[in-house]
Amino acid sequence: MLNVGVIGYGYWGPNLVRNFNSLKGVRVLKVADLKPDRTEKVKVQYPHIATTNNPDDVINDPMIDAVLIATPINTHYELTRKALLNNKHVLVEKPLAGSSDEAEELVNLAESKNLVMLVDHTFIYTGAVRKVKEIINTGTLGEVLYFDSIRVNLGLFQPDMSVIWDLAPHDLSILEYLIGSDPEGVVATGTSHFNPDVENIAYITLYYADGLIAHINVSWLSPVKIRLIMIGGTKKMIVYDDTEPSEKVKVYDKSVEIQPANNESVYKYLVEYRTGDMWAPKLENKEALRTEAEHFVDCVVNGIKPITDGHFGLKIVRLLEKIEESLKRKGNLVFLG
Amino acid sequence: MLNVGVIGYGYWGPNLVRNFNSLKGVRVLKVADLKPDRTEKVKVQYPHIATTNNPDDVINDPMIDAVLIATPINTHYELTRKALLNNKHVLVEKPLAGSSDEAEELVNLAESKNLVMLVDHTFIYTGAVRKVKEIINTGTLGEVLYFDSIRVNLGLFQPDMSVIWDLAPHDLSILEYLIGSDPEGVVATGTSHFNPDVENIAYITLYYADGLIAHINVSWLSPVKIRLIMIGGTKKMIVYDDTEPSEKVKVYDKSVEIQPANNESVYKYLVEYRTGDMWAPKLENKEALRTEAEHFVDCVVNGIKPITDGHFGLKIVRLLEKIEESLKRKGNLVFLG
Amino acid sequence: MLNVGVIGYGYWGPNLVRNFNSLKGVRVLKVADLKPDRTEKVKVQYPHIATTNNPDDVINDPMIDAVLIATPINTHYELTRKALLNNKHVLVEKPLAGSSDEAEELVNLAESKNLVMLVDHTFIYTGAVRKVKEIINTGTLGEVLYFDSIRVNLGLFQPDMSVIWDLAPHDLSILEYLIGSDPEGVVATGTSHFNPDVENIAYITLYYADGLIAHINVSWLSPVKIRLIMIGGTKKMIVYDDTEPSEKVKVYDKSVEIQPANNESVYKYLVEYRTGDMWAPKLENKEALRTEAEHFVDCVVNGIKPITDGHFGLKIVRLLEKIEESLKRKGNLVFLG
Amino acid sequence: MLNVGVIGYGYWGPNLVRNFNSLKGVRVLKVADLKPDRTEKVKVQYPHIATTNNPDDVINDPMIDAVLIATPINTHYELTRKALLNNKHVLVEKPLAGSSDEAEELVNLAESKNLVMLVDHTFIYTGAVRKVKEIINTGTLGEVLYFDSIRVNLGLFQPDMSVIWDLAPHDLSILEYLIGSDPEGVVATGTSHFNPDVENIAYITLYYADGLIAHINVSWLSPVKIRLIMIGGTKKMIVYDDTEPSEKVKVYDKSVEIQPANNESVYKYLVEYRTGDMWAPKLENKEALRTEAEHFVDCVVNGIKPITDGHFGLKIVRLLEKIEESLKRKGNLVFLG
Repeated sequence: MLNVGVIGYGYWGPNLVRNFNSLKGVRVLKVADLKPDRTEKVKVQYPHIATTNNPDDVINDPMIDAVLIATPINTHYELTRKALLNNKHVLVEKPLAGSSDEAEELVNLAESKNLVMLVDHTFIYTGAVRKVKEIINTGTLGEVLYFDSIRVNLGLFQPDMSVIWDLAPHDLSILEYLIGSDPEGVVATGTSHFNPDVENIAYITLYYADGLIAHINVSWLSPVKIRLIMIGGTKKMIVYDDTEPSEKVKVYDKSVEIQPANNESVYKYLVEYRTGDMWAPKLENKEALRTEAEHFVDCVVNGIKPITDGHFGLKIVRLLEKIEESLKRKGNLVFLG
Repeated sequence: MLNVGVIGYGYWGPNLVRNFNSLKGVRVLKVADLKPDRTEKVKVQYPHIATTNNPDDVINDPMIDAVLIATPINTHYELTRKALLNNKHVLVEKPLAGSSDEAEELVNLAESKNLVMLVDHTFIYTGAVRKVKEIINTGTLGEVLYFDSIRVNLGLFQPDMSVIWDLAPHDLSILEYLIGSDPEGVVATGTSHFNPDVENIAYITLYYADGLIAHINVSWLSPVKIRLIMIGGTKKMIVYDDTEPSEKVKVYDKSVEIQPANNESVYKYLVEYRTGDMWAPKLENKEALRTEAEHFVDCVVNGIKPITDGHFGLKIVRLLEKIEESLKRKGNLVFLG
Repeated sequence: MLNVGVIGYGYWGPNLVRNFNSLKGVRVLKVADLKPDRTEKVKVQYPHIATTNNPDDVINDPMIDAVLIATPINTHYELTRKALLNNKHVLVEKPLAGSSDEAEELVNLAESKNLVMLVDHTFIYTGAVRKVKEIINTGTLGEVLYFDSIRVNLGLFQPDMSVIWDLAPHDLSILEYLIGSDPEGVVATGTSHFNPDVENIAYITLYYADGLIAHINVSWLSPVKIRLIMIGGTKKMIVYDDTEPSEKVKVYDKSVEIQPANNESVYKYLVEYRTGDMWAPKLENKEALRTEAEHFVDCVVNGIKPITDGHFGLKIVRLLEKIEESLKRKGNLVFLG
Repeated sequence: MLNVGVIGYGYWGPNLVRNFNSLKGVRVLKVADLKPDRTEKVKVQYPHIATTNNPDDVINDPMIDAVLIATPINTHYELTRKALLNNKHVLVEKPLAGSSDEAEELVNLAESKNLVMLVDHTFIYTGAVRKVKEIINTGTLGEVLYFDSIRVNLGLFQPDMSVIWDLAPHDLSILEYLIGSDPEGVVATGTSHFNPDVENIAYITLYYADGLIAHINVSWLSPVKIRLIMIGGTKKMIVYDDTEPSEKVKVYDKSVEIQPANNESVYKYLVEYRTGDMWAPKLENKEALRTEAEHFVDCVVNGIKPITDGHFGLKIVRLLEKIEESLKRKGNLVFLG
């Protein structure tokens, strides 16, 4: 039996509790939140789970094997560090920490203590992203030419972090998972309409060595919710619309072929379009967080390295820092590496 | 009776012929295209219209009052210049010319000869854009905070100009029409997957003085056609989807209000969301090119200045040059002014 | 404190438990299901709730004030009757019973015992249906001319009742709620592809006295899920698409006006179309079952008559019987009343 | 060179003229319409085509080989008969005639004179319907279980024929083309909100011998335009949405399998669902009327029998009569055959 404690019962915490509470071989022993009205909710819905308004009551509980942390970013480092020092395995919300220095320290600490630290990049555990990964890995798309994501909605404005730290980690983690290689440079633009230090709209371009270009459009100020990722390859192209109830991933048998023009042509090259069928593969429709929770338990029980481990989470934090640097400099190219 | 001649019968020319041919008080006398198979088509469909494979036959025809030019960009300057010098009124495809120097010369020439020169920025004549303009002008949106456009499709690759010169003029003209004020700086990124000098994907950010930010995403490499513009104001927000058969323009009664937090709060400000009804105004569904054709005839006959006159067209060309400059420098901020 | 017991933990029971378990002033004391694997799930998720595999343990529990019944139709009558006889208030799944005789007996029994009996026609408690009701009641639509519903999906095939008893109650209850008046006759067609006695596709037409016509298309054999209701009035028309994440209800300012033709016309009348704006009112987005649960508690505590009380449920069962009669007779008009 | 004349230049006639006018080897010599404002339009757009306000001028013109008839239904019989008697090949709008007696006479007349008579059931010539036919013919769907069509929009109200004669011919012709076998009986309901004799909403059920059921929902009183056909088979299912700009036809790898239950089960059978990928085949996107026009010319020149010949058109008229009979009798089953 794995005993877990949860810190944070705001937006995401209830999902963690619901999922871990229904896993066999797992017991949710205690939930902490600073706000009493939130722990009251836990008491009504789960009278068998202990509650506290002090996170340390979870971290110090000797019965607890693993701590799930769903709190604001600026608390990730301190809570995760304390949990690791108390020999708890940790599942922590993305992004791993508010700076790469902090994130790196956590990675080292987890490794030195031989503890599982899973960063909750939930999208990596969706049936959709895993299917896209499979399609790319089998060479179906050919060489990947571009990745273009639009992730916009109304709110939720965060008081202490920009839309980049809030929404872009989803796309950066999907990119890292799908592409593997690191970008060489980044250009970011955006603006803060309300709070001078906290951008609410941002546009990010990532340049890769092999001609791949990635673009991420994130906003808290869109009247409609859009979750659209397009991935183009030399052979086929994917449209992944996460707001679709089914057929989220569509593979288009479309491509462009460039051929050198012959002597008589006034142009140096000829472009030919190929348009064929569209195909929407069946996706596993298990809740991603359930898959992730099972994976976390598996990692803890069997000593496996998580797919989204500390190194994975650290990469995302490093990218976020570079993106923010370019954004503050109004689009100047920032090199990575 | 206004007699017109048409140069270019490729993609857009047939639309010009069809529209002007069905206008009362207008006669299409002659159509020119370098390719005989295209003029053959004219002969079959419109046996009453003369054809030629030499554009000068149109420009020099003394019976012709106005010349409509639908040819590749790199020919706009030369053909328009010759037509103006021959005292013809001109309707010319967007963008007006391949450089701002050329465009400026054409503007001056048309003015000095007192001739009508209308640049075919067709979107300005759609019921949708004109309704959006009306909504903004009446203050319904409040202060405009952002403009975000996605204009992507598969092809048509142009051999001699990038996707910026092909697709971005639509958004730049809509911005110019709706907003009026000029941007202060531009950042553009993008890439050329096939022809080193001709970008096929580009992302453009325009910074304005008053906090307004505009972003334009153009691509020739998308498996699906997207024509989506979102415009957010302090009071309401618009989603304009040009691929919708009806209800293209939707006005969302949504907004964000920021208020200073009181002493007890840990945060400096509080964000409140307002969500209300959605409203899709009825749009005039007349073909935009028909409205534009009538406007052109009206300008010629009654000596009126076109909405999309040479000055309008010149502004767009100047922006395109600055965007290209930023793009070639991988996102460096280029100041306008 | 209201103590409730739940019978049935298959598809709908978990939703009842989740909602009533999170209501203040309500305690879910016990859950019954014949299948041990289902009660096991209750134990894992809600260790504080007692479980049993014998429904009578719920019905006979003196601590329990109200029983929520989410079992197959053919058990509704027996379980509800026993619960009422044991002086329990009852919330029972739609349809109320498998025959109008049984339903009528339950209505009389509940009334004689002065107990609340709410039939779980959940759609009546959605923000969408309540908004449509408000729009109709305020005369916005004018006179209602038609109601057309398409409610199709793949499965779930029921072994002992046709698609009519499974899906049509939703539309019949919405009709009853919105329109109020009773239909005069019904024509139903359909077929059983697999089980000779259990139709899996059906088409129902209801004729009303005042020219209103209603049509309901239900199927378990559609590859896509459609939940579309159109309601046309003399002044405006509504499209209610329940699969939309937001803007479920759209009001179109469209109508048809018929005018007698003048003498010179060859036709007896002239039709004029009016097309205006579209408007999507903001809807309350509270979970319908939560609204219903609160209403049930309110009815029990304060002695109020439920919106979907026994008389309401009985009407639906009577209609289902007539529909089935017409269906078995391959579309013969069956008179009601 | 094939010389054609056109009668009727209202809604559909301009499409006939545009298509035949651009065909090689075909000349449109003359267009007739009773209304002078319509023939004026022809003069402006096609100054090379003669016009007349007397249909007989087309029918009697010795230069004309074939007559294309796009006039109200009640004139089809008379005009087609005269044209055939004058030895003209005929392309006539659907439905072929206002009664099966008239239609039959035309079929016999065309055959006795050895003339081509093509009924303009345009949908049969779309890339979508031809692809669906191919999918069914190759056995991909398995046995066809149902056909369900929704074809609704606002107007155009016809003064002299019901929505059945206006819209249902599309579905009946698609059914005839795809399925081949004849229905055994029909049930139709509907209503006339404005003109007592002219239904503006109708629901049609067709029963076939082998368990196939077809349903057609047609209306002139819908605020939105829907063109949705679902076809379910034992192996796969099709959704054909004609309002989609691309991917009109989607094939779902979904099905239901019924198996006898074993002894221990309380149910007589078990239902299993299979859900797999979705596939949208590439469709030829040539304009259907162009394909049809070429087919008509091919039939005339090479003596081929049209796909939608008189016998095809006659079947549709016979069905329409039976449907109307059932409708007038408020849904009584009318046997065919």
